[in-house]
Amino acid sequence: MSSSGSDGLSRRSLLGALAGLPALPGLLAASAPAAAQSAAPLSSWNDGPAKQGILDFVRATTGASSKDFVPPEERIATFDQDGTLWVEHPIYTQVVYCLDRVPVVVKEKPYLATVEPFKTVLTGDFEKIAKLSLHDLEAILAATLTGMDVDAFAAEVSAWIDSAKHPRWNRLYTDLTYQPMQEVLTFFRANGFKTFIVTGGGQDFVRTYSQRVYGIPREQVVGSAGGVKFGYDKAGKPFLTKEPKLLLNDNDAGKVEGIHLEIGRRPHAAFGNSTGDRQMLEYTKAGDGARLSMIVLHDDAKREYAYGPAQGLPDTKVGTFPQALYDEAKKDGWFVISMKDDWKRIFAFEEA
Amino acid sequence: MSSSGSDGLSRRSLLGALAGLPALPGLLAASAPAAAQSAAPLSSWNDGPAKQGILDFVRATTGASSKDFVPPEERIATFDQDGTLWVEHPIYTQVVYCLDRVPVVVKEKPYLATVEPFKTVLTGDFEKIAKLSLHDLEAILAATLTGMDVDAFAAEVSAWIDSAKHPRWNRLYTDLTYQPMQEVLTFFRANGFKTFIVTGGGQDFVRTYSQRVYGIPREQVVGSAGGVKFGYDKAGKPFLTKEPKLLLNDNDAGKVEGIHLEIGRRPHAAFGNSTGDRQMLEYTKAGDGARLSMIVLHDDAKREYAYGPAQGLPDTKVGTFPQALYDEAKKDGWFVISMKDDWKRIFAFEEA
Repeated sequence: MSSSGSDGLSRRSLLGALAGLPALPGLLAASAPAAAQSAAPLSSWNDGPAKQGILDFVRATTGASSKDFVPPEERIATFDQDGTLWVEHPIYTQVVYCLDRVPVVVKEKPYLATVEPFKTVLTGDFEKIAKLSLHDLEAILAATLTGMDVDAFAAEVSAWIDSAKHPRWNRLYTDLTYQPMQEVLTFFRANGFKTFIVTGGGQDFVRTYSQRVYGIPREQVVGSAGGVKFGYDKAGKPFLTKEPKLLLNDNDAGKVEGIHLEIGRRPHAAFGNSTGDRQMLEYTKAGDGARLSMIVLHDDAKREYAYGPAQGLPDTKVGTFPQALYDEAKKDGWFVISMKDDWKRIFAFEEA
Repeated sequence: MSSSGSDGLSRRSLLGALAGLPALPGLLAASAPAAAQSAAPLSSWNDGPAKQGILDFVRATTGASSKDFVPPEERIATFDQDGTLWVEHPIYTQVVYCLDRVPVVVKEKPYLATVEPFKTVLTGDFEKIAKLSLHDLEAILAATLTGMDVDAFAAEVSAWIDSAKHPRWNRLYTDLTYQPMQEVLTFFRANGFKTFIVTGGGQDFVRTYSQRVYGIPREQVVGSAGGVKFGYDKAGKPFLTKEPKLLLNDNDAGKVEGIHLEIGRRPHAAFGNSTGDRQMLEYTKAGDGARLSMIVLHDDAKREYAYGPAQGLPDTKVGTFPQALYDEAKKDGWFVISMKDDWKRIFAFEEA
């Protein structure tokens, strides 16, 4: 796990995967019904090697007479979030949150209005915002994700996530989870697995909605984490403040290190979609007995997005999937999930 | 959470509470039957305010029509280990492990045999060992708890804990859990609570036996934690190495910070026995609705130990319980558990 520097928290936590921000979407506020969940296991999956791989793995690890039987208390499955459980394009949801928060932060600290990069963000000019440097983005993440009470932060994120919408579908971000993956979560849990999110995003952020959106409780979310500081308010009541200090950069090797820190056990199954998930998928697959590593390929421009050099497409820097990762997947026996071919539908709101 | 320095891992992790080591017990190897668990809830508790406090709290938080009802997914109870769930005197079990490991480490690195503090530990002269400085102990902890593969470490601890015995009872350390507290764990879980250990000890250490001894899975153990480093062996297989770098000193305010990091939610109930648990008990009690903070007072020299200034006894530095903590407990509405008065029996192997 990389040691903390003196500089910004979720800066590095998010920014490992954040280089090259695309244009920003506008954000509208409204509400929408929660996604419905189908009752039949994996009903949104087409028959094929990916679906069969999941079924075979669960049978092998849970069948009482199977040589690869895993006791229930050891059944751990880990899932990347962005691009694996929900839409990550054109920009990570948490980054949208941070940019949306800038006006609030400037209201509290008016001098920031004339200081870059806040000045540029306040213009609302997405072309200019998209050109901000990594260093600028770090400053924005630090200013919007730290320095406040952890409960106040959670309340703010909850209010935002209940109203912010994705510009392409004009739906809540929380409606844009992949129905086939929701079915995998349900299927694993029905077979005694504990499901964990292991995300490059901030764990304080994802924990605010993980139970409602994925049925995953807060303590089963591992993510990039900043330090918090214990203190007392004037009335002597203890509270925790989010500090601009990075404890865990939960990307790349950091995902495995975060799994060791917060779970303490090698997963039996892991799901990802980009280079940030590579080490987690390798570590999972390298365990004894039956192990399942699966990687989602975004190859469905019509229903969602298609991106990544593995398909001869440009590297958009959000969910990078190079040819080398594809080759490793094939060589090491991971399953590549083709959104186009393996998924009958992408979202719960689509017709099956 | 305190930032990591360049110096020793579990050094500081353990040593927050370790000042003033008492004499070391000898260690014998043998086996003993696992502790039996009574079927009736809290049957090893005498009637009184402490037992009633537990029953009232669980009724208040789980009764469907209670104003303080807590949804099952939010039910979190945290338990300190040393002195709260099992015997901590005369010396923390994990420190005994580290001292026992010194000969093995010296075998791997023979030059250490002539270097202090290893030279002194190898003499086996407990009076001299007990006089080692904090700095010496840090060196021992760093040498015995870091630098190895996480799986190799877990295997070593497992082998040790299956044979090492406490000198007073000549029983496995794992037989020296408090039967009344085992019943609290069982009672809470039967009422939908997730039980977590939150220990100043190393979480990699405690996780090796938590499931078997307490019914608590690895991922529900929060403790002092060093960094781990991801790498590949010569065959290209990924592995994790324990690093001499402290990520989380899970003592004092660090317990609350560790709870935020690995659980992400304020507990509804917390149990401790010393100043190292103070902030956890405060933070728990400061939450909305029904909250339970309980602190074990070691006042039973006959059946276990009596120690601490709150009883006018010397501060042994292992499980410090000063008068101020006792006063705070009374003032803030925590329950003080008297081992002598509240517990019908201490260990499962005693007659009830």
